[in-house]
Amino acid sequence: MKSAVFYGKHDVRIEEAPQPKVGADDVLIRIAACGVCGTDVHIFEGDKGAADVTPPTILGHEFSGIVEAVGDNVKDIAVGDKVCVDPNDTCGECYYCRNGIAHFCEHMTGIGTTTDGGFAQYCSVHKKQVYKLLPEASLVACAMAEPVACCLHGFDMCDVQPGSVVMVIGGGMIGLIMVQLAKIAGAHKVILLEPVAVKREMGAKLGADLCIDPLSEDVKAVLAAHHVGRINAVIECAGLKSTIAQAIDLAGKQSTVMMFGLTKPDDEVPIKPFEIFQKEVVLKASYINPYTQTRAVDLIQSGKIDVTSMVAEVCSLEKLKEVLADPALRAKGKYIVDPWMA
Amino acid sequence: MKSAVFYGKHDVRIEEAPQPKVGADDVLIRIAACGVCGTDVHIFEGDKGAADVTPPTILGHEFSGIVEAVGDNVKDIAVGDKVCVDPNDTCGECYYCRNGIAHFCEHMTGIGTTTDGGFAQYCSVHKKQVYKLLPEASLVACAMAEPVACCLHGFDMCDVQPGSVVMVIGGGMIGLIMVQLAKIAGAHKVILLEPVAVKREMGAKLGADLCIDPLSEDVKAVLAAHHVGRINAVIECAGLKSTIAQAIDLAGKQSTVMMFGLTKPDDEVPIKPFEIFQKEVVLKASYINPYTQTRAVDLIQSGKIDVTSMVAEVCSLEKLKEVLADPALRAKGKYIVDPWMA
Amino acid sequence: MKSAVFYGKHDVRIEEAPQPKVGADDVLIRIAACGVCGTDVHIFEGDKGAADVTPPTILGHEFSGIVEAVGDNVKDIAVGDKVCVDPNDTCGECYYCRNGIAHFCEHMTGIGTTTDGGFAQYCSVHKKQVYKLLPEASLVACAMAEPVACCLHGFDMCDVQPGSVVMVIGGGMIGLIMVQLAKIAGAHKVILLEPVAVKREMGAKLGADLCIDPLSEDVKAVLAAHHVGRINAVIECAGLKSTIAQAIDLAGKQSTVMMFGLTKPDDEVPIKPFEIFQKEVVLKASYINPYTQTRAVDLIQSGKIDVTSMVAEVCSLEKLKEVLADPALRAKGKYIVDPWMA
Amino acid sequence: MKSAVFYGKHDVRIEEAPQPKVGADDVLIRIAACGVCGTDVHIFEGDKGAADVTPPTILGHEFSGIVEAVGDNVKDIAVGDKVCVDPNDTCGECYYCRNGIAHFCEHMTGIGTTTDGGFAQYCSVHKKQVYKLLPEASLVACAMAEPVACCLHGFDMCDVQPGSVVMVIGGGMIGLIMVQLAKIAGAHKVILLEPVAVKREMGAKLGADLCIDPLSEDVKAVLAAHHVGRINAVIECAGLKSTIAQAIDLAGKQSTVMMFGLTKPDDEVPIKPFEIFQKEVVLKASYINPYTQTRAVDLIQSGKIDVTSMVAEVCSLEKLKEVLADPALRAKGKYIVDPWMA
Ligand SMILES: NC(=O)c1ccc[n+]([C@@H]2O[C@H](COP(=O)([O-])OP(=O)(O)OC[C@H]3O[C@@H](n4cnc5c(N)ncnc54)[C@H](OP(=O)(O)O)[C@@H]3O)[C@@H](O)[C@H]2O)c1
Ligand SMILES: NC(=O)c1ccc[n+]([C@@H]2O[C@H](COP(=O)([O-])OP(=O)(O)OC[C@H]3O[C@@H](n4cnc5c(N)ncnc54)[C@H](OP(=O)(O)O)[C@@H]3O)[C@@H](O)[C@H]2O)c1
Ligand SMILES: NC(=O)c1ccc[n+]([C@@H]2O[C@H](COP(=O)([O-])OP(=O)(O)OC[C@H]3O[C@@H](n4cnc5c(N)ncnc54)[C@H](OP(=O)(O)O)[C@@H]3O)[C@@H](O)[C@H]2O)c1
Ligand SMILES: NC(=O)c1ccc[n+]([C@@H]2O[C@H](COP(=O)([O-])OP(=O)(O)OC[C@H]3O[C@@H](n4cnc5c(N)ncnc54)[C@H](OP(=O)(O)O)[C@@H]3O)[C@@H](O)[C@H]2O)c1
Ligand SMILES: [Zn+2]
Ligand SMILES: [Zn+2]
Ligand SMILES: [Zn+2]
Ligand SMILES: [Zn+2]
Repeated sequence: MKSAVFYGKHDVRIEEAPQPKVGADDVLIRIAACGVCGTDVHIFEGDKGAADVTPPTILGHEFSGIVEAVGDNVKDIAVGDKVCVDPNDTCGECYYCRNGIAHFCEHMTGIGTTTDGGFAQYCSVHKKQVYKLLPEASLVACAMAEPVACCLHGFDMCDVQPGSVVMVIGGGMIGLIMVQLAKIAGAHKVILLEPVAVKREMGAKLGADLCIDPLSEDVKAVLAAHHVGRINAVIECAGLKSTIAQAIDLAGKQSTVMMFGLTKPDDEVPIKPFEIFQKEVVLKASYINPYTQTRAVDLIQSGKIDVTSMVAEVCSLEKLKEVLADPALRAKGKYIVDPWMA
Repeated sequence: MKSAVFYGKHDVRIEEAPQPKVGADDVLIRIAACGVCGTDVHIFEGDKGAADVTPPTILGHEFSGIVEAVGDNVKDIAVGDKVCVDPNDTCGECYYCRNGIAHFCEHMTGIGTTTDGGFAQYCSVHKKQVYKLLPEASLVACAMAEPVACCLHGFDMCDVQPGSVVMVIGGGMIGLIMVQLAKIAGAHKVILLEPVAVKREMGAKLGADLCIDPLSEDVKAVLAAHHVGRINAVIECAGLKSTIAQAIDLAGKQSTVMMFGLTKPDDEVPIKPFEIFQKEVVLKASYINPYTQTRAVDLIQSGKIDVTSMVAEVCSLEKLKEVLADPALRAKGKYIVDPWMA
Repeated sequence: MKSAVFYGKHDVRIEEAPQPKVGADDVLIRIAACGVCGTDVHIFEGDKGAADVTPPTILGHEFSGIVEAVGDNVKDIAVGDKVCVDPNDTCGECYYCRNGIAHFCEHMTGIGTTTDGGFAQYCSVHKKQVYKLLPEASLVACAMAEPVACCLHGFDMCDVQPGSVVMVIGGGMIGLIMVQLAKIAGAHKVILLEPVAVKREMGAKLGADLCIDPLSEDVKAVLAAHHVGRINAVIECAGLKSTIAQAIDLAGKQSTVMMFGLTKPDDEVPIKPFEIFQKEVVLKASYINPYTQTRAVDLIQSGKIDVTSMVAEVCSLEKLKEVLADPALRAKGKYIVDPWMA
Repeated sequence: MKSAVFYGKHDVRIEEAPQPKVGADDVLIRIAACGVCGTDVHIFEGDKGAADVTPPTILGHEFSGIVEAVGDNVKDIAVGDKVCVDPNDTCGECYYCRNGIAHFCEHMTGIGTTTDGGFAQYCSVHKKQVYKLLPEASLVACAMAEPVACCLHGFDMCDVQPGSVVMVIGGGMIGLIMVQLAKIAGAHKVILLEPVAVKREMGAKLGADLCIDPLSEDVKAVLAAHHVGRINAVIECAGLKSTIAQAIDLAGKQSTVMMFGLTKPDDEVPIKPFEIFQKEVVLKASYINPYTQTRAVDLIQSGKIDVTSMVAEVCSLEKLKEVLADPALRAKGKYIVDPWMA
């Protein structure tokens, strides 16, 4: 099969690889779509703090496809089924697994990081990580189940209720999912801060009531002009030091600031504890996607979350190398690899 | 001013009454719309368990209007403003007020129950119970802020998240508000059980994905046919013994059963603790509207909750007597009194 | 090895059985202590609703011992270690496992129910279910980790805070653990209702501030005499219809009623929804021990929870048959089997 | 009456003042004990960020006494009763009061800050702020109800459960209350970091399992030596930039860091969002004492929280000036003013 193998920093090669083995508990998936994620870029760049990958490895952890074969113990999934995956698996026996926070498992494995992933024509996945889709499901959309599941985990921590006021900072793929989650969670007002006009337009289309360019507009003045009072949750999705500080500054009394965007491992943001105190702001972050994959699949399949409008291009494995290497390309939107595309 | 005064069981009289006095902290409201609520009917019927009313009293606690005059201490509300009210006020000093559950205040007062209410041309209300509306607000819709606020309190306890599956039993005014709250809270599926076809149609229009007639259809079979799996919350809004039992029966594992509908004070429902145990169902009820009035007003004014489609008629004070006396009339939908209507 | 094998209703036989096999992931435990639990009695009695057991099976799921041998993959546990077990294991792939409520796993297995358990001299247990103890740990006490873990799960749902008022109904093994949990959670007052004088004395010794005989005393009068105001949580541990009704009756405003005791599967308790409404009582039940085993072990080992004062007798496998058959015996307190006792 | 009147920065004068008027809703309290709090010092120092005080004002907000007279509307409190107070009162009508977070009231008033307080022989207090004590209550201890109530509010946010591991940084009055709250909430281990030996000893006496000198010991090494694993909550009570950073560093996965200590308004602490992300640490602060005063009084009166062991001296109004001016004096422990002491 054709595959994109990571050999080390800046070294991804398109190679023929043997089709993966299918154990008794495994599902062999003919990959239809695999998203290119920031994590892939961090690995490609050899960044400190990125997931630990021992080359050679096939990257790619946001994927969907059609079942090609199943092992003997697989009962609920059949050849021909559309499926997507949760790439993360836990050991079930470490302290964290035993104490209900399994996403901190000491022996976590990840498809596309610790084992071969979705930037290939096939991938073999343990049945417990496979999610069956509806026959009419869009495989490109459902490849996004993992990022949506991550967003759900973070969003759940924000305690948004019908009538809440929610601000999202950053209108990339993640920010635009958060805008939609806030909208479908009944937020009275959803405000998006994003410097790029076309992303603000997309944000407005996807449900933001108010889109502000934080670089050229006076955010507080615009908020005041639109009678935005207490903001109940600020969800930071840009991953910048400045936007985290801004999130705390704009957050209302007894609100949540969700630092969903990832800064560099050593980045430091100066916070004023006195400001946190005066507002009882709760500062949180969200780590991967525990227990949210089913809901993510449901929300995508029912069309409640649009994950394809932000897709810049469905591209070939060959183009993947360019996408990993070129930030300008990635700025255009989300890239999805179809490993069968010529 | 013209008013409808309650003198005792089945005795409501339309009378001229003096315009209410306006204290230094009061707002005199020229009533535009006042909803007829089940509580009013219970009082009219002299039911045990209904709010304590010492006649003669003007009933009516769901109302809105235009400010006619304000007392000296009223700063933020001006003559001509559109407003609605929260009828309930608390003492601030009893055990419950001091411990953060003020809606159980030992000295609770209620406009339209312990003091004169909205079935009259004017009502004088302490400024702390008055909510200012937008100039363009619909006064009929905003008269419904109190029932929406009650629903929000109950709904908040149901822990509905984006992707949850929610069932509402009973498609009256309250059930249809709950259907909408579930929808705008991101429920993956909203299921309505309601025997009357026209109410099911309204439910579907307002967001229910699946409407079932529980009297003529096999509910479990219909759910199975529509692949409805675990139901995360069942919100009972019919107030019947049978529907409460049904709610527990249909509830999924670790779900919430919200008994929002009110049974008669002595009604008993037999529950099986073993069933509660096997599913870890959490059985709750919701008492009035603590701290939810602002969000209710916001959701109504922004059009996120439709409260006027269920209105059967905006009627006169004279007709109020008929409405209170005649269940067949009330079955047609919500009645709203306009005390200025001839 | 010597073992007590369940062959069907009222048929438990003491037999020689082969020592269990030790797979690569298994730990062979030389059993030191195994508690006799209500579940064992229900199975012995052939009760409907009891755990499904396919005879012949060695019962016993509350146990501890010393490691006799370990499989090749076992790294953190060594021969000679003191250990106890969590008998329940989940599949990791069903809907419930995927959605964070794994204790409702569709393929749950249980040591001592679906597989051979602790009423034998040895038991082989998958390493993920084995908890390592301190060298100085009491093996009799630590055999009680599973019931304490169950209690913790139920107790966690009661939202007890420093300053809460907690009532426990029933002073058996479970009720006395709950009394202690309430005490160590900072309850301002812990009240125990229990008809048997010696159990009330034990309750008082273990931390109850007020012990009432519900059969001969007027509970409400005693509460009033002791100035007990709002009760924040009532934890029912008798498993009777009457005590569940009593729990709801005595519960305060916005309190939790935890139905921890198990009634018979078909037992029905009539509840008044109007009473639930007027108090916003939250009615809950608790299902087994998800994610609480580590804390249970810690609390027992550190002496914060006393589980041995309620032990009637540490007995032999032979005596187990009598204990299972004779309620009068069991009324004396908890029985612990030492399978090496002659 | 004799009183200590604040006239401005560093200017507190002991003066004769008229006995305060007693309105119809007021309770005149003959002050027995009034604590000197950090807030009083900040006001005395004219610090930015301290409570707004318009001189001349009698400071002192942590007090208790005996009822000397009551207004006509006061029913539940009688002359001769022992009482303490909650100094804070809210307007009941601003956005925050209406939305259940009244401690952010826009028109908050405070006895001892916006109105005359407890550093005087008498104080007149609205009945809703007065808490009746038991006849046998210690008035010195109950003067500490307000700081204990503040601590309870912060502690409640930490989600400590029986079996949790809790670290407290700073062993002053506040830290030692937090140590006790952690202990009575069932913490498996309570760890105190405090540089002063005598305070560590007091911490150990009040329940800390492990007391570490953070200046001379290697904290992580000591924790490792004592097999302290995941810390569930770190409660910072020193109010220093360095200890806040340390709190985040030592916090376990999915733990809470409560920044209870107050830094200077402009103090900045550099945090690493990536570290917050990798651990899902939740960073919080706690603002005053909403709804916790009743529980504080209960816990003090029942002896569950010891607030007198940390008292350095019960002193006269004259000595108050020294205490406010001299940090060395305050380092000895808590000062309580008895305005009747010569
Ligand atoms: N916590 C988790 O589990 C998790 C999971 C997935 C992703 N993430 C993180 O989420 C973040 C967002 O991911 P993404 O894929 O959406 O990345 P992205 O496409 O780079 O989106 C970031 C967006 O922020 C915008 N931005 C830049 N400066 C800004 C400013 N000053 N104010 C507001 N917006 C600004 C960017 O605009 P430009 O076009 O001008 O750059 C871009 O649109 C990343 O940091 C990623 O690592 C976290
Ligand atoms: N907790 C609170 O704070 C609060 C506040 C307000 C209201 N409530 C309560 O909420 C409940 C609903 O109020 P509402 O104004 O909407 O009353 P409603 O108009 O009487 O609505 C009840 C609905 O339930 C339907 N129903 C009857 N039998 C049913 C069955 N077997 N299955 C499903 N639905 C059935 C009724 O249909 P038909 O047309 O056939 O009768 C009706 O449409 C009342 O009990 C009210 O007291 C509670
Ligand atoms: N939810 C779970 O996960 C879970 C786990 C374990 C156990 N359980 C259940 O917890 C319950 C308690 O277990 P256990 O081992 O402690 O049982 P137990 O020893 O039978 O204790 C029940 C106690 O309740 C007392 N009692 C009887 N009538 C009473 C009354 N009217 N008022 C107050 N107390 C009364 C009994 O006294 P006498 O001595 O007079 O009988 C006995 O002391 C059982 O129902 C068990 O099935 C549940
Ligand atoms: N959030 C609220 O509502 C609220 C309410 C009340 C108080 N507070 C705040 O709580 C904090 C504590 O109050 P307090 O009255 O207990 O003050 P305190 O008596 O000054 O206590 C602070 C303690 O921290 C110790 N400390 C100094 N450096 C330390 C270090 N590196 N590591 C560990 N401990 C260190 C101090 O020791 P030394 O003796 O060496 O100085 C002192 O014992 C203050 O910041 C106060 O403003 C907050
Ligand atoms: Zn693990
Ligand atoms: Zn009250
Ligand atoms: Zn499972
Ligand atoms: Zn206010």
